[in-house]
Amino acid sequence: MQIKPIGNRILVQPLKQEEITASGIVLPASAEKEKKAQGKIIALGNGEDLKKLGLKEGDMVVFGKYSGEDVEVEKVEYKILYVGSEKDHSDVLAVME
Amino acid sequence: MQIKPIGNRILVQPLKQEEITASGIVLPASAEKEKKAQGKIIALGNGEDLKKLGLKEGDMVVFGKYSGEDVEVEKVEYKILYVGSEKDHSDVLAVME
Amino acid sequence: MQIKPIGNRILVQPLKQEEITASGIVLPASAEKEKKAQGKIIALGNGEDLKKLGLKEGDMVVFGKYSGEDVEVEKVEYKILYVGSEKDHSDVLAVME
Amino acid sequence: MQIKPIGNRILVQPLKQEEITASGIVLPASAEKEKKAQGKIIALGNGEDLKKLGLKEGDMVVFGKYSGEDVEVEKVEYKILYVGSEKDHSDVLAVME
Amino acid sequence: MQIKPIGNRILVQPLKQEEITASGIVLPASAEKEKKAQGKIIALGNGEDLKKLGLKEGDMVVFGKYSGEDVEVEKVEYKILYVGSEKDHSDVLAVME
Amino acid sequence: MQIKPIGNRILVQPLKQEEITASGIVLPASAEKEKKAQGKIIALGNGEDLKKLGLKEGDMVVFGKYSGEDVEVEKVEYKILYVGSEKDHSDVLAVME
Amino acid sequence: MQIKPIGNRILVQPLKQEEITASGIVLPASAEKEKKAQGKIIALGNGEDLKKLGLKEGDMVVFGKYSGEDVEVEKVEYKILYVGSEKDHSDVLAVME
Repeated sequence: MQIKPIGNRILVQPLKQEEITASGIVLPASAEKEKKAQGKIIALGNGEDLKKLGLKEGDMVVFGKYSGEDVEVEKVEYKILYVGSEKDHSDVLAVME
Repeated sequence: MQIKPIGNRILVQPLKQEEITASGIVLPASAEKEKKAQGKIIALGNGEDLKKLGLKEGDMVVFGKYSGEDVEVEKVEYKILYVGSEKDHSDVLAVME
Repeated sequence: MQIKPIGNRILVQPLKQEEITASGIVLPASAEKEKKAQGKIIALGNGEDLKKLGLKEGDMVVFGKYSGEDVEVEKVEYKILYVGSEKDHSDVLAVME
Repeated sequence: MQIKPIGNRILVQPLKQEEITASGIVLPASAEKEKKAQGKIIALGNGEDLKKLGLKEGDMVVFGKYSGEDVEVEKVEYKILYVGSEKDHSDVLAVME
Repeated sequence: MQIKPIGNRILVQPLKQEEITASGIVLPASAEKEKKAQGKIIALGNGEDLKKLGLKEGDMVVFGKYSGEDVEVEKVEYKILYVGSEKDHSDVLAVME
Repeated sequence: MQIKPIGNRILVQPLKQEEITASGIVLPASAEKEKKAQGKIIALGNGEDLKKLGLKEGDMVVFGKYSGEDVEVEKVEYKILYVGSEKDHSDVLAVME
Repeated sequence: MQIKPIGNRILVQPLKQEEITASGIVLPASAEKEKKAQGKIIALGNGEDLKKLGLKEGDMVVFGKYSGEDVEVEKVEYKILYVGSEKDHSDVLAVME
């Protein structure tokens, strides 16, 4: 069984530490800001914002580490994240290319 | 007599523990997040968001365990849940396929 | 003299306890949620949401017991309830069929 | 000189106690809800909601007793009330027919 | 030099006490409501709400006494008031005719 | 180098005291309201509200003294102000003509 | 690997102190306002507001020093900033030309 997020939500598999190091991208922690994490898009809802923003399966994204909802499918950990074009409405900030 | 939710609401019958275990999907509890539950859609309102999101009778959905309203019809327990495409407006997060 | 609600409001006559029992529908009270009640639609305003949601005179509806406004016409007790398609905006959740 | 409310506002003359009694309509006071009052529409603004809701001069309406603004014209007391189709936005709830 | 309000704002010259008395309109003070005042429109912005509401130069209006901004032009006192069709958004409630 | 505000923002150079005195316009300070100031528009963003409101370079405007952001270009002090047609959204209230 | 912001977000590289001094633009710190900073746009999302506002790669912008999210790519520090046309919604205030 698989998870398909609804609307403007995506299912993301967080990167492992060695993949993050290899990417050359560091998201520094700070006292005032939520820590960031990186992950790969596994599935997307059918929301219009996702199409407008051009996100697709396999994209690597940057998101708030404690954002969204944890879900475990066949013992693998994922996150369901909300993606929006408005400020403060999106768990996802950027794509890594 | 049956319950028909209005607008963007659905009537859901929560899964039993053995059905949840069989699904292979685990929704871990945590201190900061609302516990999640799984259930089957029994009836849908005629709201536009439900059509856009492609939900239909029989779909298995993931929702906030304490979201929505409890209702008991002929001694069976159900929940009336709100489904929306906006962040923080939807009791339902994903469909299990 | 009669009461005609304006806009997306309806006039509802709450069901008596024996009618509720006969319906087979139980709306359990809980500590965190507003208690629910059941009633019959006596009159409707001309609001667009009422038409979209397909509500009509005689429909039996489920609503928040302490929602809306109490009104007594010729010694009969009624409630004026607001019906909306947005979450948290509707005093009415479902229709009993 | 007369008062003409602007937009979706109406000028209402509250009913006297004997008129209220004769109407057969009682609006019970309660601890949690604002007390209701009844009155006759004397003048209307040119707002679109007033037209949509079908209100007209001479209509008897039910409104929140402490809603709106008091105004005295030639020693007669009136109220300027706001009428809206959204929940919690309307001082007026229903028309008496 | 003159003041021209922008958008849905108007410049109003408050009436003197004898003009208010002559109008036959009294706006009673109360503990819970903002005191009202009366004045003449001297200039209008080019906002769409002003046109919809049909306000024009020379109109006598009722407004919240402490609403808006005070401005003194060539030693005469005026107020810049906001006029809106939404509830709680308008400093101006009615026109005197 | 020059500053070009984005969207519905304008760059304003505050008037000197002698220019304010000469204008004949006084904006009295009070305990409850933000003090006002006067200034000349130096540059405008390309926002639609600015066009609707008819503002242009060289216009003298009235604004909240502590509104907006201070910026110093080649040792001259300016302010970046937001202009909007909604109540409480605009740093600028009126134009002086 | 590079960072591509989504929607109405931009990737900005903050200017060094000598570049800021050379620009002739000073953004004074104050007790009540967020300190400002200056930077160069390195990448833009595909959001509609960015196009409307006419921002492009290489533009020098003024933004809130503590706004947005820090990100380090190949040991160079950048910021992901949100750009909006609404008041209080934009991390970016102006372009330097």
